[in-house]
Amino acid sequence: MNFRKKFAVRTGDRIKLSEFDPDENFDLSKNEDTAELIRKYTKQLTEYQFRLYAENRRSLLIVLQGMDAAGKDGVINHVLAPMNPLGCRCQSFKTPTELELAHDFLWRIHAAAPRRGEVVIFNRSHYEDVLIQRVHGIVPEKVWRERYDFINDFERLLARNNVTIVKFFLHISREEQLKRFKQRLEDPGRNWKISESDYSERKYWDDYQQAFEDAINHCSFDHAPWYVIPSNHKFFRNLAVSEILVDTLGEMDLEMPPCKVDLAEIREEYRKAKEEEEKKR
Amino acid sequence: MNFRKKFAVRTGDRIKLSEFDPDENFDLSKNEDTAELIRKYTKQLTEYQFRLYAENRRSLLIVLQGMDAAGKDGVINHVLAPMNPLGCRCQSFKTPTELELAHDFLWRIHAAAPRRGEVVIFNRSHYEDVLIQRVHGIVPEKVWRERYDFINDFERLLARNNVTIVKFFLHISREEQLKRFKQRLEDPGRNWKISESDYSERKYWDDYQQAFEDAINHCSFDHAPWYVIPSNHKFFRNLAVSEILVDTLGEMDLEMPPCKVDLAEIREEYRKAKEEEEKKR
Repeated sequence: MNFRKKFAVRTGDRIKLSEFDPDENFDLSKNEDTAELIRKYTKQLTEYQFRLYAENRRSLLIVLQGMDAAGKDGVINHVLAPMNPLGCRCQSFKTPTELELAHDFLWRIHAAAPRRGEVVIFNRSHYEDVLIQRVHGIVPEKVWRERYDFINDFERLLARNNVTIVKFFLHISREEQLKRFKQRLEDPGRNWKISESDYSERKYWDDYQQAFEDAINHCSFDHAPWYVIPSNHKFFRNLAVSEILVDTLGEMDLEMPPCKVDLAEIREEYRKAKEEEEKKR
Repeated sequence: MNFRKKFAVRTGDRIKLSEFDPDENFDLSKNEDTAELIRKYTKQLTEYQFRLYAENRRSLLIVLQGMDAAGKDGVINHVLAPMNPLGCRCQSFKTPTELELAHDFLWRIHAAAPRRGEVVIFNRSHYEDVLIQRVHGIVPEKVWRERYDFINDFERLLARNNVTIVKFFLHISREEQLKRFKQRLEDPGRNWKISESDYSERKYWDDYQQAFEDAINHCSFDHAPWYVIPSNHKFFRNLAVSEILVDTLGEMDLEMPPCKVDLAEIREEYRKAKEEEEKKR
């Protein structure tokens, strides 16, 4: 499959979310074959991430967005957790603090941007400022509309600084969300995830879909594409996300950097040190 | 005088630094009158700053740039130090650290941006990235040229977030710089300011002037003007800078915010507390 091509929104594209089927699975199903494929991708991802870290020249920013229960935490757990925490950081953006609100909306985001060699996952992101803030009228239309440009300026700055940007919209249906809310109610291990606003937010479903669609259409570029991932099937969501990440990193031609020292010399030092040790015995 | 109008570079203006006389003083001289005027401005500044702090809605960013010995530290000491440190912060930008270099050039700058209610002074700034980095070829032309746009995007973001931006280029002559270097040599109290690069940098004087001129011409807007301040005369530099700041803050119509509590009620509480205290005695 080439999920990357299938789900990418690139420079100039204009999409309609209603034309994307959240149930799409290309006739694949959750079985040993697809599980094996995900494992293969995950292994490749960890290899690429290690090379990115060793190279210390470029970085990767993964933005995860979606409705409540769309599977952001799931993607982090299944696809990204195996990466080496030494060069991988997950950054969640919750309701802004008083200090964050005392600055422009990108202040807290910029501070969390990846350093060279790092993979950073944004669990929610600056896009909340054109989503929840728009839907609930926290800022007037003039303000959130302008933010598309500020977001594009900001992502262009990162991209120019060798940050590869990949943005996933985890696309689920209204019915699937309700099903997952029910699971949270019935499974004591998931009760903690239930929040007061789960159901009250559902009445804004269409407004959120519109806000996502507009954000995707205004802020998709070849250097920072959005991917609309059919996410009603968790196995498929994980498969698509990991394949897209593998393809993205694969394209970067990550190579282990050459050794910076004279190995013959170091081997000689090792030999001497060993000799010394043996004499002492 | 209206120094603000005289020295401002605004949207669309194109200046030549060679046409600005660093010796300009409009026939004023260092005497009790001008000293008194500076004191008056300084007092007004501290009043405005307090209101900005109390209002907690907008902020002020002052960018100071200039050749070595142009008087950046002097302006901070004479004009800005009287402000209340509670709502005023001075941020110096030195050679970037390894962590700062591992991010885009605006990363460390954005992190230091003023919060609501704050006055922040940038002692050097993001402009170094189109000055020293250009003059010494630390980055190729393609890179520093693009930075003008990134700087403008960034300052527009701040301005939209109610940050008033004022940028001062302290303009001195080559001869004046040499004179000041000599003072540093002769005054043991100033020896610590001497750096190895003082004289070696002087041979890049013209390159720096060109870099400053281009930065000013590319990055001057009504919402973030540069001011070219004749700075050979220290008293005049202080006078001009403080007048411009007073005028800028004056235009913001800063008012003490209304009291948020019922004063009559609080007075009654005070009366009761006092009564209680007196009974106990």
